[in-house]
Amino acid sequence: MSHNTFGHLFRVTTWGESHGPAIGCVIDGCPPGIEFELSEIQKYLDRRKPGQSRFVTQRREADAVKVLSGVLPQSERDSYITTGTPISLMIENTDQRSKDYGEIARQYRPGHADYTYDVKYGLRDYRGGGRSSARETATRVAAGAIARKLLPNVTFRGALVQVGKHRINRENWDWSEIDNNPLFCPDAEMVPIWERYLDDIRKAGSSVGAVVEVIAEGVPAGLGAPIYAKLDQDIASGLMSINAVKGVEIGEGFSAAELTGEENADEMRIGKDGTPRFLSNHAGGILGGISTGEPIVARFAIKPTSSILTRRQTIDQDGQEVELRTKGRHDPCVGIRAVPIGEAMMACTIADHYLRDRGQTGRLD
Amino acid sequence: MSHNTFGHLFRVTTWGESHGPAIGCVIDGCPPGIEFELSEIQKYLDRRKPGQSRFVTQRREADAVKVLSGVLPQSERDSYITTGTPISLMIENTDQRSKDYGEIARQYRPGHADYTYDVKYGLRDYRGGGRSSARETATRVAAGAIARKLLPNVTFRGALVQVGKHRINRENWDWSEIDNNPLFCPDAEMVPIWERYLDDIRKAGSSVGAVVEVIAEGVPAGLGAPIYAKLDQDIASGLMSINAVKGVEIGEGFSAAELTGEENADEMRIGKDGTPRFLSNHAGGILGGISTGEPIVARFAIKPTSSILTRRQTIDQDGQEVELRTKGRHDPCVGIRAVPIGEAMMACTIADHYLRDRGQTGRLD
Amino acid sequence: MSHNTFGHLFRVTTWGESHGPAIGCVIDGCPPGIEFELSEIQKYLDRRKPGQSRFVTQRREADAVKVLSGVLPQSERDSYITTGTPISLMIENTDQRSKDYGEIARQYRPGHADYTYDVKYGLRDYRGGGRSSARETATRVAAGAIARKLLPNVTFRGALVQVGKHRINRENWDWSEIDNNPLFCPDAEMVPIWERYLDDIRKAGSSVGAVVEVIAEGVPAGLGAPIYAKLDQDIASGLMSINAVKGVEIGEGFSAAELTGEENADEMRIGKDGTPRFLSNHAGGILGGISTGEPIVARFAIKPTSSILTRRQTIDQDGQEVELRTKGRHDPCVGIRAVPIGEAMMACTIADHYLRDRGQTGRLD
Amino acid sequence: MSHNTFGHLFRVTTWGESHGPAIGCVIDGCPPGIEFELSEIQKYLDRRKPGQSRFVTQRREADAVKVLSGVLPQSERDSYITTGTPISLMIENTDQRSKDYGEIARQYRPGHADYTYDVKYGLRDYRGGGRSSARETATRVAAGAIARKLLPNVTFRGALVQVGKHRINRENWDWSEIDNNPLFCPDAEMVPIWERYLDDIRKAGSSVGAVVEVIAEGVPAGLGAPIYAKLDQDIASGLMSINAVKGVEIGEGFSAAELTGEENADEMRIGKDGTPRFLSNHAGGILGGISTGEPIVARFAIKPTSSILTRRQTIDQDGQEVELRTKGRHDPCVGIRAVPIGEAMMACTIADHYLRDRGQTGRLD
Repeated sequence: MSHNTFGHLFRVTTWGESHGPAIGCVIDGCPPGIEFELSEIQKYLDRRKPGQSRFVTQRREADAVKVLSGVLPQSERDSYITTGTPISLMIENTDQRSKDYGEIARQYRPGHADYTYDVKYGLRDYRGGGRSSARETATRVAAGAIARKLLPNVTFRGALVQVGKHRINRENWDWSEIDNNPLFCPDAEMVPIWERYLDDIRKAGSSVGAVVEVIAEGVPAGLGAPIYAKLDQDIASGLMSINAVKGVEIGEGFSAAELTGEENADEMRIGKDGTPRFLSNHAGGILGGISTGEPIVARFAIKPTSSILTRRQTIDQDGQEVELRTKGRHDPCVGIRAVPIGEAMMACTIADHYLRDRGQTGRLD
Repeated sequence: MSHNTFGHLFRVTTWGESHGPAIGCVIDGCPPGIEFELSEIQKYLDRRKPGQSRFVTQRREADAVKVLSGVLPQSERDSYITTGTPISLMIENTDQRSKDYGEIARQYRPGHADYTYDVKYGLRDYRGGGRSSARETATRVAAGAIARKLLPNVTFRGALVQVGKHRINRENWDWSEIDNNPLFCPDAEMVPIWERYLDDIRKAGSSVGAVVEVIAEGVPAGLGAPIYAKLDQDIASGLMSINAVKGVEIGEGFSAAELTGEENADEMRIGKDGTPRFLSNHAGGILGGISTGEPIVARFAIKPTSSILTRRQTIDQDGQEVELRTKGRHDPCVGIRAVPIGEAMMACTIADHYLRDRGQTGRLD
Repeated sequence: MSHNTFGHLFRVTTWGESHGPAIGCVIDGCPPGIEFELSEIQKYLDRRKPGQSRFVTQRREADAVKVLSGVLPQSERDSYITTGTPISLMIENTDQRSKDYGEIARQYRPGHADYTYDVKYGLRDYRGGGRSSARETATRVAAGAIARKLLPNVTFRGALVQVGKHRINRENWDWSEIDNNPLFCPDAEMVPIWERYLDDIRKAGSSVGAVVEVIAEGVPAGLGAPIYAKLDQDIASGLMSINAVKGVEIGEGFSAAELTGEENADEMRIGKDGTPRFLSNHAGGILGGISTGEPIVARFAIKPTSSILTRRQTIDQDGQEVELRTKGRHDPCVGIRAVPIGEAMMACTIADHYLRDRGQTGRLD
Repeated sequence: MSHNTFGHLFRVTTWGESHGPAIGCVIDGCPPGIEFELSEIQKYLDRRKPGQSRFVTQRREADAVKVLSGVLPQSERDSYITTGTPISLMIENTDQRSKDYGEIARQYRPGHADYTYDVKYGLRDYRGGGRSSARETATRVAAGAIARKLLPNVTFRGALVQVGKHRINRENWDWSEIDNNPLFCPDAEMVPIWERYLDDIRKAGSSVGAVVEVIAEGVPAGLGAPIYAKLDQDIASGLMSINAVKGVEIGEGFSAAELTGEENADEMRIGKDGTPRFLSNHAGGILGGISTGEPIVARFAIKPTSSILTRRQTIDQDGQEVELRTKGRHDPCVGIRAVPIGEAMMACTIADHYLRDRGQTGRLD
């Protein structure tokens, strides 16, 4: 596996920079015979799209996805069926204000990849962060939409569960609230609190971190593989590859450090339908790297947006000390738009393991 | 990449079960010309070895490693030089009490991989957990020892920083304390507290979780690669593959969710020696997936040992409900022995990225 | 490695069908800082382009390549520098006469992939052969042009050495003849013979096979790796992946079967410049899977174009026996246009091994 | 994929040198539940084993294989069932006469990998060729035996079809002859001719090349995948990785260059059983990189053994010109023992594609 590819049998290779002509991805290994409409991809892209509320960057991108290969067009407009060959998806960049970035072309923005790209590659595309821009994640969301079609009985849902120090009350969790607010918040009572807080952050030209939770329900038991393709490992890898993510946990996660063996054990019984069931899900749906059939629960922490309006000390590529105040259009909390991205990474990872398991064990389908 | 292999240019494939004749690994891609003594591998294995104190499992394994290939023996005894061909390392299993496991051959131990292995594979090696046993991690420690030799200017050190609810006082951090106590604890004041606590846990037949911190110092800036080979992503993947790990974080990790952009920014200046330096290291040594030259800091959470002496409800492979009390020899806190394993995974991952970067950019050496 | 990707550090993923909107490739792992002009890619595409002479298909494609990512535009028009991020290249399909293929939508053309695709995938893109069309090879030629830039001191040249039973006289070999005729023939005396023969074949609606030889000169000794990344193995793999190729050989190839050890040995002496040299090159520049520094010589056999105007017996997808006469525009000898494709595969493979060797041994640059 | 591993879902990693303590391989991805007896692996190793006749090297190796992991021992002695975890196989080296190689420790044997290993790695294990020795192929034969168990309905058989200029008469082909002579010759009339010829070669201290043909019967249609995992490509890659192989061809192979489209077409009809059948098999069982259901036919050319008793000119590692006469025990025709190796590589490759296809399409089982 390499730099810009993830997955093994359901493989996604992404390409493109923030301010180039387009971004895109190639999905290799998608099974044949999967029918989808373009709108089924587009709807997920629209959830991640910038400019949707005052809490996210005001860059305006249509994020209209095109399917360039790997499908047969069906009689209905924008309806396709996969052929088993690589699916090339492309999104043209339309709203590129390269001039915004002129003055930081030579200065390293703290918290950004400017310095490290220059050290590694000797040069970088400074326009909008180039390849290190979160714009790349649009292609992951598109790939995730295809992955969902591959697993029609699995739901992949995400929510923002913490913004700064404000955590949701898990007892208020209501999935139907997610689409009622621009923050992917499942706790209706928390919404106004977060909104006021984020308004303050935005007006101050500041930013703040967040935590996202992603849950996959309906995943069959038996996916994943010891030892270096553990399902939790691959999910962690996928989530950690999202821009600005600094931590990932499964099930109890870091809280498990505080538990005893008795508290953490997920006991088992036989359900009324005669099938095994777990009495709890501290494990987050994964034991020994293999899915248990319980919901798979992952959380990831996103650092505050590095681009802020406060002057910070930094250096430029000539080794001069400078002070830098990032302009341009940015998200006060990149964690918000990370919700559909996290769902997509979870969907792609589980689709990949579904195919791998079918290959190795022949159990499924 | 596949089920039992990790790494790309420095590739490690492990094999073996807890109660088979041996366990081992093959290291593929190690550069030629690296000299080492067997004792330099053995000393890390000895740190991980069971039976070292009353806080870890009493299984007695010599864990004596043999080098079967990939080296030329040197004139001095147990001294070798790598040839660039695959290095096969083997550790024989000596203290296997298979009878201990007889009665759980058909019952699923809560928190273990018994159920999921049976679902996936239709059968499993129940003796000591088979492939899902942490015994496999001995081979990682051996591979990590070779990786360290490849990067002589980098130090990889780990410490236990939390046991149950007891966290060390970071102001007391003293690396030299690590080897003065059997708990890899860098805080001398915390050692007796943890010891008393773990004695209680052990006597109660219970177990508890923990958090390990691993730090790599001396890593050159520029290692890692966007987008799906981010250094933090690959470290997270490696650490999450360790048995019982439920969470991984880099630098500020989950705390970053609570910070503002101003608080989290690592500002830069030019040091007295004329080279760039960072005024803080919230990023944990990685920006945009690429190393900054600052120490790389990772933490991971380990759940409490699942094998406890308290009866728990579970089922057996015939779908019968049973109550199970795990016997055998086990660790009250598997987090302790996870310290050298975490170091090894960090070392292997960074060695791999060192070679990858040298391949792609030709910058190093 | 997967279905539509080749290479390890210099990785090429291709996508696209004959009659979709476009074809393209993503080159992942290209080192940063390589300057090139678009015309340096285009010139190789033009060599492979259909419609160049009466001996190749009359499909008219501009084959104009676009660079969508992975580069910084330079001040000069159509001049770029690579950034180390994935390079996305796209070629739009312009001359698609899908109607030509209407009647074979349900019939399996003998020698084509129609039947096997249908068995495997349950459906196929019958328009122009879909993904199985040699049109995909245009993207390889584009990737090969980038690979050449990475290795400025290596020349990759190919020639047609056999058409049907007519083999060139190797004593007449003159590389400068290659561009003087439309058949990539290095033997001026053979050109009129082949032209007459191919005219006959073309007029008869028939086709014929061919053999291509590709030579890389200037490859440093030491590239390639035992055991499953042998340089000859990877070259064979790359060449065998070209449509219609049925055999590959290195150096003496199948002739080696007839030689004795004495005849086949490449003896060594020290040259006047003090460096090792070989007195012959039966090995084709590779020993033990590793380059010797001598020219790397590979040949591959291409079967006759399967599309011919003679009626052949076949079946359709309903299991009915039918007789089929392929219409459409086709090459009487696909071997001709395979020359630049073979060069490209050789260039990509050697570029990949150059980076791999630099990664593992740090010898080069 | 990397240096010492082949396969994707059925992955084989080999390790070991000619004169180290042992050689071995790790098979990762073998499905669970496959029962086998040790003798079923051993019998293939015995076919490849040295010292079986006067026509092969007189090195005496028991080549006794041990299974170290990945299986559950069954009640019957030496009977096992696979568990889905990595299968580690080991063969100890017993007859190592390192002293034979003393004088060539510093000299480069023509046709061997001595020079190229030294250039690449800066040092090498000169004892018996180290890693470049064909001894490594014993581990492939062991892996191939497991692959055969995975595909019980497929037969993998090989034969020697050419020794020097002497080719078998294909009309005499009789598989039952293969085990009646020590040369894997399917043509009883050719056996005495080859024996006399090889006796002469052996007595002269010379060697000669050969051609091996391997046929897989019973492979279901639909295995393989466009574009860079074509079944013929992967078979070619596997066969070309065998020591001393210089050419590979599928079906008509190089002869296809001489055929017209009419001659080469494999026409189709519906058989009496209602299933599609081909009227010929010029394609060697593969169209568009995907199996047709017809026998898969591959041939490969092996160069003459490089170690001969005639003095040859060469250089040593100090750059001095020397004359070298290789001593030690060697095969007059390495092609003979290549037969079971070719079968093994074919079996592993097809097993891998079987699992891959099952993963991607879910068609099989």
